[in-house]
Amino acid sequence: MTTQQRSGGGTVAHQLIAAHLLEGRMDPGEEIGLKVDQTLTQDATGTLVMQELEALGPDRVRTEVSVQYVDHNILQADERNAEDHAFLRSAARRFGVWYSKPGNGVSHPTHMQRFGVPGKSLAGSDSHTCAAGSLGMLAIGVGGLEVALAMAGEPLYVRMPRIWGIRLTGALPDWVSAKDVILEMLRRHGVKGGVGRVLEYHGPGLEHLTAMDRHVIANMGAELGATTTVFPADGAVRDFLRAEGREHDFREVAAEPGARYDLDEEIDLSALQPLIARPTSPGNVVPVREVAGEPVEQTVIGSSANPGLRDFLVAAAMVRGRQTAPGVSFDVNPTSREILQDLTRAGATFDLLASGARLHQTGCLGCIGMGQAPTSGRNSLRTFPRNFPGRSGTEDDAVWLCSPETATASALEGSITDPRDWAAGRRVPYPEPELPEEAAVNTAMLEPPLPPAEAAGVQLVRGPNISALPRLDPLPDSLDVPVLLRAGDNVSTDEISPAGARALPYRSNIPKLSEFTLTRLQADYPERAAELRENGGHMIVAGENWGQGSSREHAAITLRHLGLRAVLARSYARIHWQNLANFGVLPLRFDDPDDQERVRPGDRLSLDHLHEALADEAPPALPLRNVTRDETYRMRHDLSARQRRAVLAGGTIPALAGTRGQPPPPAG
Amino acid sequence: MTTQQRSGGGTVAHQLIAAHLLEGRMDPGEEIGLKVDQTLTQDATGTLVMQELEALGPDRVRTEVSVQYVDHNILQADERNAEDHAFLRSAARRFGVWYSKPGNGVSHPTHMQRFGVPGKSLAGSDSHTCAAGSLGMLAIGVGGLEVALAMAGEPLYVRMPRIWGIRLTGALPDWVSAKDVILEMLRRHGVKGGVGRVLEYHGPGLEHLTAMDRHVIANMGAELGATTTVFPADGAVRDFLRAEGREHDFREVAAEPGARYDLDEEIDLSALQPLIARPTSPGNVVPVREVAGEPVEQTVIGSSANPGLRDFLVAAAMVRGRQTAPGVSFDVNPTSREILQDLTRAGATFDLLASGARLHQTGCLGCIGMGQAPTSGRNSLRTFPRNFPGRSGTEDDAVWLCSPETATASALEGSITDPRDWAAGRRVPYPEPELPEEAAVNTAMLEPPLPPAEAAGVQLVRGPNISALPRLDPLPDSLDVPVLLRAGDNVSTDEISPAGARALPYRSNIPKLSEFTLTRLQADYPERAAELRENGGHMIVAGENWGQGSSREHAAITLRHLGLRAVLARSYARIHWQNLANFGVLPLRFDDPDDQERVRPGDRLSLDHLHEALADEAPPALPLRNVTRDETYRMRHDLSARQRRAVLAGGTIPALAGTRGQPPPPAG
Repeated sequence: MTTQQRSGGGTVAHQLIAAHLLEGRMDPGEEIGLKVDQTLTQDATGTLVMQELEALGPDRVRTEVSVQYVDHNILQADERNAEDHAFLRSAARRFGVWYSKPGNGVSHPTHMQRFGVPGKSLAGSDSHTCAAGSLGMLAIGVGGLEVALAMAGEPLYVRMPRIWGIRLTGALPDWVSAKDVILEMLRRHGVKGGVGRVLEYHGPGLEHLTAMDRHVIANMGAELGATTTVFPADGAVRDFLRAEGREHDFREVAAEPGARYDLDEEIDLSALQPLIARPTSPGNVVPVREVAGEPVEQTVIGSSANPGLRDFLVAAAMVRGRQTAPGVSFDVNPTSREILQDLTRAGATFDLLASGARLHQTGCLGCIGMGQAPTSGRNSLRTFPRNFPGRSGTEDDAVWLCSPETATASALEGSITDPRDWAAGRRVPYPEPELPEEAAVNTAMLEPPLPPAEAAGVQLVRGPNISALPRLDPLPDSLDVPVLLRAGDNVSTDEISPAGARALPYRSNIPKLSEFTLTRLQADYPERAAELRENGGHMIVAGENWGQGSSREHAAITLRHLGLRAVLARSYARIHWQNLANFGVLPLRFDDPDDQERVRPGDRLSLDHLHEALADEAPPALPLRNVTRDETYRMRHDLSARQRRAVLAGGTIPALAGTRGQPPPPAG
Repeated sequence: MTTQQRSGGGTVAHQLIAAHLLEGRMDPGEEIGLKVDQTLTQDATGTLVMQELEALGPDRVRTEVSVQYVDHNILQADERNAEDHAFLRSAARRFGVWYSKPGNGVSHPTHMQRFGVPGKSLAGSDSHTCAAGSLGMLAIGVGGLEVALAMAGEPLYVRMPRIWGIRLTGALPDWVSAKDVILEMLRRHGVKGGVGRVLEYHGPGLEHLTAMDRHVIANMGAELGATTTVFPADGAVRDFLRAEGREHDFREVAAEPGARYDLDEEIDLSALQPLIARPTSPGNVVPVREVAGEPVEQTVIGSSANPGLRDFLVAAAMVRGRQTAPGVSFDVNPTSREILQDLTRAGATFDLLASGARLHQTGCLGCIGMGQAPTSGRNSLRTFPRNFPGRSGTEDDAVWLCSPETATASALEGSITDPRDWAAGRRVPYPEPELPEEAAVNTAMLEPPLPPAEAAGVQLVRGPNISALPRLDPLPDSLDVPVLLRAGDNVSTDEISPAGARALPYRSNIPKLSEFTLTRLQADYPERAAELRENGGHMIVAGENWGQGSSREHAAITLRHLGLRAVLARSYARIHWQNLANFGVLPLRFDDPDDQERVRPGDRLSLDHLHEALADEAPPALPLRNVTRDETYRMRHDLSARQRRAVLAGGTIPALAGTRGQPPPPAG
């Protein structure tokens, strides 16, 4: 690392980080503390964030803008959803937070439309927060507690990433769109390809991509495991903000001439073709033509991965005057009320309905397994970001990820279809819809923060489903506990703490939610873990990229609630790793990866002198004894001194409470 | 009864019944057998109907038109919904039935739009089938097995009802609409007021009511317990069919001059005011002004009780340029794709969205507890037909039933509001939207029956959630079993076998669905019943109107599956009573109603010589011995000889199998 790189190598990412740097050095891998201008929370993570914020004690958020969205948990199968909404609204009113009602829209496109400002930083308790990088923001998805801390005015801590410059040249061919760009990145690099990196897109190809196209690409940077994605704020961003009535929020953010990236990549947009991710990983990408003809039972358009008006207009133009295939459910999930209003004004809502679309309420819906579950084993094509096993709500699902063009052509044909082949047979020109110069801006479902005097008097509305945060006891000086589970590579937080219509309503109820923990991998895990809890708990052994996917800190909290004290993995996904430390679970990795193979479920493992091993200046290594096999492995951790103090205290909240002399939060 | 009345007293109802009479005499109370021209099934009842049809053995339906709708179970929280849809589609293709895809619409308005023909008869496995009486049809909601029998060409058996003439005079004032007419009937007569009757509307007031207004009134005749509701087929019906492109299906159906009704009622439409049913019964009707000012958290427009384009257009006109109150969720459930297309074409979809509406997919949704559950104890105003306790999905709910005008004014104000008072303050004229001369007719989501040769080759697609019908053993000659439950008056089938997002996906799985039976009244009922099953089963004691509400035969089947052999009630709701007999449960009533008070839960009751007591010519009375209290009560039944044979055989399917020498259906 040269000095120039540390102080900002002139890239957009370096500039954004430097402008928000509060602590640390910009050396890749070092922990840095960033000033957070804006925060974003959604309802599936927000109920905990608001309770954490309450536990942290500030009277009002200290950010420029904080917004609470309700977009995930909106089916309302029983009273719990509506109770959560009432709690979130009261918390927003209490703490000076904007509240976006159910029906207003999915957080990411809505935030971009109403609050996104180039050059600002954004922390969100949703892994796709990075989508706002499309506007030249530094937008990072993190665990809920990190967001609560940012709301309380604390820095956001991340490891300084390496900056990966992706130079775009050429222009996309007809029937190939932004989704195919990010699928190409996933095809090349897989679901771990972006770990420890910021993806920064640049080059002449950018001029053909609108701000919302860039949102598509930035959003699914999360699927590469990247810290975030950034784009420059240029004319396309100015056009977007102008249409939103917010041109005054525009400022240019551009890489300096001669900016240097830590790594370089190039994509010739003109050489791309329609791509599709096979079940059950966003990394299983192949050309659509390679799988053409497979029967399709369902296609879904929408989600934060293809949220823009353009995506729906293209689909509507393709189906105009046509009928989707009889055996296909053609589901359309509008991403925001604004987009649905524009779509309706353009006549496209009518065209979609006439073709057989099921038009659903505005929200995340099937993307988070809230409804729209497909039949077991039958193909569902979705414009969503993720297809982890079971995330759809169907245990044995077959979900594919693709562009709106591919999804729509396939809905019309009843089988997986390259949109170029569909169009060629019919001489259909590629729809290039004009976007309205002024969007149907509508802020009426966004409640602004109350004035401080009024806010101070608001009582939190806490229904019976809102349980208190669990009490977190300090880490003992030694552990001697069994291995309860041995997992493979790329286990997602969807597998650790499932979403879906059964579990999601319990997102505010940790004891109840814990009953779903890891049951996809081992049906009796919650039961057995609970049995071991009184005797010191247990450990888990995992492979590469443990905890990929969604930012849900529930994955860490429920594991901790069930008595997990340490994970021994080959490597970790960023957000989940932070969440483990935040909730007092020790995330260790094997110094010699081969040692991971030697540990078996049921082995009794011991760690001694932990307080010494995790002291501020201690080296980041410690021995792990396998009592059952009479072996010792060398383990490493990557925790900063701040994180080590948190783990020792039992978690970040007790650590802060200790610092401030406050009592710990109430027991759960 | 005079001869004239028996042969048809000149009313519309008499004419329709006489035209379809296959068996029996038209004396009120006598069992009559009717020819069924059309059938309607929905997905929550249809999976059983299709299995029953399969068990009955016909190669193809023998009706003129049979339609399978998918409108209830469409949230798809997991794979079971989609599996049910795939099963229903395959069964429709196999048996010569139309298939209406999810998203096409709620059965009742869709059937009216696409298939309704004045003068025809319709049997439907949904209690609101009576809505088609708006077109001058004889439309009767019955249990699923009755529909399966009708599909197989058997007569539909009902008790000859008394004809209740309701003469309408005057015209509705501004801000008062069809919903207030039927709420007025419920205010006057309560939820048992229509038992054993057909409601026939006539008089000069009719000329101001469109066919869809009449649908609103006919639909909720079910809430009075009526056998059905009929209207004449006049110019309003011709106008409706013309707009649907089906004027050729019109034929006039009118009462003869001097037609005589068994009972008479009069409603001066001009004297009506906005009404509302309080929680938790459609019979708790009061003027809106009496409860004005109560805070509202949710309002929902839609369902088969207010399905028409007009209802949505009025709401849209009221909210145009306005915002619904911040704390209110304003939910809009379009009832059919056609209506949503027309609404969108008229610009009203845009207005609704702009005012803060959550626009949901086309279907029953919250009306059947599939989503939209309100917060416990907070007021939800709905244009739905029913507000039985817990039906919304929220245990401790507070659901009110009202017109779209009242619901919309209340959504705008955030509290229960008489629309006249809302309008007066703002000088808003009453919206009287023009309906399009041609509706956006769209049949592409309706799959026509396959030709017989092709249909014969179709295999039923039976997912793991489709369980076989349970085996039904014959009624023993004597019973000596305990009373497991003693219930009050007006227990609905929603309380016996709940709908909602948890239970509804198990509608094809009787053993699993049984675990929800009667748990709202007694949490351990399923468990205790199952324990008693091996020792001969149990009985239930009930009050008036046992089994009101939905037609779901699951209420009878799950009771039977859990070992119920007899119900001892003061009185029964029509459809559930038929369902009990169809599934081999003996429905008895106390000759002296006071005896009902003497039986307590846990009492051991015995019935002897049942085969003799239920023989074809036996008198309809038998003694019941209370062994515990050493008492004997005189019981009556109202079963026809046909029904007695069914009960003795264990149910209608085994009875028919016996007649035909077929084996019983496979064990569950």
